[in-house]
Amino acid sequence: MNGAQSVIRTLVDSGVEVCFGNPGTSEMHFVAALDSVPAMRGILGLFEGAVTGAADGYARIAGKPAATLLHLGPGMANGLANLHNARRAHTPIVNVVGDHATYHHRLDAPLESDIDALAGWLEGWSRRAVDTESAGKDAADAVAAAMDSPGRCATLILPADVSWGEGGVSSPPAARSARPSVASGTVRAVAADVVADGRTTILLGGEACRERGLRAAARIADATGAEVLVETFPARLERGAGLPAFDRLGYLAEQATRQLQSAARLILAGAVSPVSFFAYPGRPGDLVPAGVTVTTLAEVGDDVTGALEAVADAVAPGAEPTVRAPLRPPLPSGPLNVRNWADVIGALLPDNAIISDESNTSGGGLAAALSGAPRHDVLMLTGGAIGQGIPVATGAAVAAPHRPVVNLQADGSAMYTISALWTQAREQLDVTTVLLNNRAYAILRMELQRVGAEGAGAAANSMLDLSAPNMDYVKIAEGLGVPASRATTAEELAEQFSAALAEPGPHLIEAVIPPLL
Amino acid sequence: MNGAQSVIRTLVDSGVEVCFGNPGTSEMHFVAALDSVPAMRGILGLFEGAVTGAADGYARIAGKPAATLLHLGPGMANGLANLHNARRAHTPIVNVVGDHATYHHRLDAPLESDIDALAGWLEGWSRRAVDTESAGKDAADAVAAAMDSPGRCATLILPADVSWGEGGVSSPPAARSARPSVASGTVRAVAADVVADGRTTILLGGEACRERGLRAAARIADATGAEVLVETFPARLERGAGLPAFDRLGYLAEQATRQLQSAARLILAGAVSPVSFFAYPGRPGDLVPAGVTVTTLAEVGDDVTGALEAVADAVAPGAEPTVRAPLRPPLPSGPLNVRNWADVIGALLPDNAIISDESNTSGGGLAAALSGAPRHDVLMLTGGAIGQGIPVATGAAVAAPHRPVVNLQADGSAMYTISALWTQAREQLDVTTVLLNNRAYAILRMELQRVGAEGAGAAANSMLDLSAPNMDYVKIAEGLGVPASRATTAEELAEQFSAALAEPGPHLIEAVIPPLL
Repeated sequence: MNGAQSVIRTLVDSGVEVCFGNPGTSEMHFVAALDSVPAMRGILGLFEGAVTGAADGYARIAGKPAATLLHLGPGMANGLANLHNARRAHTPIVNVVGDHATYHHRLDAPLESDIDALAGWLEGWSRRAVDTESAGKDAADAVAAAMDSPGRCATLILPADVSWGEGGVSSPPAARSARPSVASGTVRAVAADVVADGRTTILLGGEACRERGLRAAARIADATGAEVLVETFPARLERGAGLPAFDRLGYLAEQATRQLQSAARLILAGAVSPVSFFAYPGRPGDLVPAGVTVTTLAEVGDDVTGALEAVADAVAPGAEPTVRAPLRPPLPSGPLNVRNWADVIGALLPDNAIISDESNTSGGGLAAALSGAPRHDVLMLTGGAIGQGIPVATGAAVAAPHRPVVNLQADGSAMYTISALWTQAREQLDVTTVLLNNRAYAILRMELQRVGAEGAGAAANSMLDLSAPNMDYVKIAEGLGVPASRATTAEELAEQFSAALAEPGPHLIEAVIPPLL
Repeated sequence: MNGAQSVIRTLVDSGVEVCFGNPGTSEMHFVAALDSVPAMRGILGLFEGAVTGAADGYARIAGKPAATLLHLGPGMANGLANLHNARRAHTPIVNVVGDHATYHHRLDAPLESDIDALAGWLEGWSRRAVDTESAGKDAADAVAAAMDSPGRCATLILPADVSWGEGGVSSPPAARSARPSVASGTVRAVAADVVADGRTTILLGGEACRERGLRAAARIADATGAEVLVETFPARLERGAGLPAFDRLGYLAEQATRQLQSAARLILAGAVSPVSFFAYPGRPGDLVPAGVTVTTLAEVGDDVTGALEAVADAVAPGAEPTVRAPLRPPLPSGPLNVRNWADVIGALLPDNAIISDESNTSGGGLAAALSGAPRHDVLMLTGGAIGQGIPVATGAAVAAPHRPVVNLQADGSAMYTISALWTQAREQLDVTTVLLNNRAYAILRMELQRVGAEGAGAAANSMLDLSAPNMDYVKIAEGLGVPASRATTAEELAEQFSAALAEPGPHLIEAVIPPLL
């Protein structure tokens, strides 16, 4: 077999069964090799940001990596923003970046660039394959590196001659490091603290946002009076009726500070200590109020679920946690606005849904509207690089073909990776996109005020405005092969959302809502 | 004034009058400062690839840089691919990349990343502003660095607190290095060689592809029998009736080798020695045939025009060059195909047009169809990172509001940066896009065969296919605010192209053509 075949064979043997890609000439042998390893499913994206975001969404749901296939430095560059989100989500992804043949570099051909520098930017694992014989082993190592807790981007740079060379050897899965357990002494200390101190807040992050972690945290809270918060942008948060429901830490620094100000102790369970998303003149970046003691129960990557359960067993042995009762908001009526659209989603969300949430400023009412809805997963914008929502929904739908995927999508962010809709159409993925069109970078209108920038006038505001011309997302979606409709009232949104959920394949609903500001 | 104001003031004083941007919170003071320096025109792009490509197109026509405004590492990452093309084009661009406040870095907020590593990838100039007082000087240095021959990307990383701090000082333009002249000895030697050797080929690149360089090269060719070729993908090539017309070096290695095989000597005039765009098994990457002597008259960045004129004055003093007579192809009729669409453009191209050419495989007939058309500029895909055409057309139209801009655009590449159409609509730019929809990554179908990849079947071919579903570019363009129509015959294309040229503002024509393969 050639090098490309050995890499794909090894990826499959290591459990990687999907390759999202946007290839070029230097990847043609890899593409050809897809036919020799039918267990690898190749899925085409029209742009690398759609490819990498889909790999992120896939792994958040599948719990194992997809591969990406990217074309040299510029192809990888196009995929970096969503890989940044994946890095912050600790998502395992195996990037295969095709490169010129090893002997071609010295010629400085037009597409030559320092791919290693781009791979390094991700602060994960990277390796440059140097010969065909070891490329399979490189691929196995990449999967293991991606999967090692807490998960990361692993980038294998694959020169064209390594791909096309004969003598490839597929490699068995590489050994993975064991996930660190939390020391029993740490568990005992946290258990003692949380009992002793009536003003403890536990901040959940990473895997602690899944059912087992949430249930353990709820048992602790029930027994001790501790507050529980969830990190601001979890990679995957399980929510809905039958699960404990906790507020997320606010995005705005002043919200977060308010949530934390009554605490005497903050216990980190798979989360990092809260910091402001951005710096603002005269305001602190570290959001932990003065006088609050910060204790780490488990770092992200540790067995945080086991640690939470151990604390729960210590403070509330045998107890069942308080969970949210089923409760849907009533279906609203009248023109859509920034709050009532969320109630439509809450009223109609199907069972076992996956929500890709990039609703941004339009999503303020979502958490409340969905807290008693049927159980669902929420995939959030972990790294702040907008343009995640549509690709992540796409990948999640590939990972879970029998679950409904709902993408709640801000308009400004949508335009970064809108072409991922085409992949949804091509693969006939069951994704319902609700595109919230407020015709502005509404979050920046807010931030322009919050940063205290003086003198902003017509020129500044024009840079935040998306209304001249208005975009017609129905036409854009239809142009990309996705059936679409427009809703301006709650009744229309309800009708269209129900209809979209009832039909297989992708749909897009443009929900026109007035901007916040 | 604050730091942001000092930067913008300085940019304007250094001749930078346009800022293409896609800002975020860390750039809000910069955005607000646009109102205090009205001479700086802010132009919003919906995605950073559109922003950086527009800056490239602007500078190729304006001959001076635009600024870009990018949001932290992910924003810069999204803009890198078109900056790669700009790097290969030696386009001067001043990137202003907003960053977190200096004191915020240690908190590792979600959008934190190594921006310096991304700036370094461009192999241009970069600096991190460290205080408000010197930010103006940093901006002046950035412009000078960008403009120093042969032109490059200069990246100024601007922390938010440097922007918002008071005490900014605008800075006068920084001194620029003089462009190196070519030594008279080199000119004499080349002149002697080209006269002595009947089998000389001169390869023109960079500035030599403009009128003066072309005319000087034609005088040399007329007098000595030398062949003249133009580099494969020039940043800006002047063509049409009244100018000398030379073939470009072929993209495919076998074409280029054929063009060079009769030469005994190759003289490089602002071009690099020809290399294969990609490596192919068993074929050489260096395209200079064995036995051909390579001589450099002028490196890119040298005064190549002056050097060519000096050689011309030596071998053909006072002579007028042979130029192309006006000659348009007749208007074709019948269903569109890969050749006749180009004749429609050649028959109807308006005077003084700017062509942004990303037609790729569909563009094989363009050079012949346009060689006797009214004089025009062609802006080509310099770095191979697809998605350049629409943004470059956008920026070119900003630089030359009174010239018609024609974007000849392949379908696969279009989807990388399609949102730039919206900026055309917003700014009411006079751009006519002819989108060549062959429903495939046709170039990859060709390359899949050329690389000798065996075993490619349905899975492989599916990764190169854009027909399931077909994209409807008329709807997509209309959704982005650009009037659009579809042509399937030469007559329709002619009628729609004429109508689009006659009306101000942007238009898109989807030209449906059967794929080559």
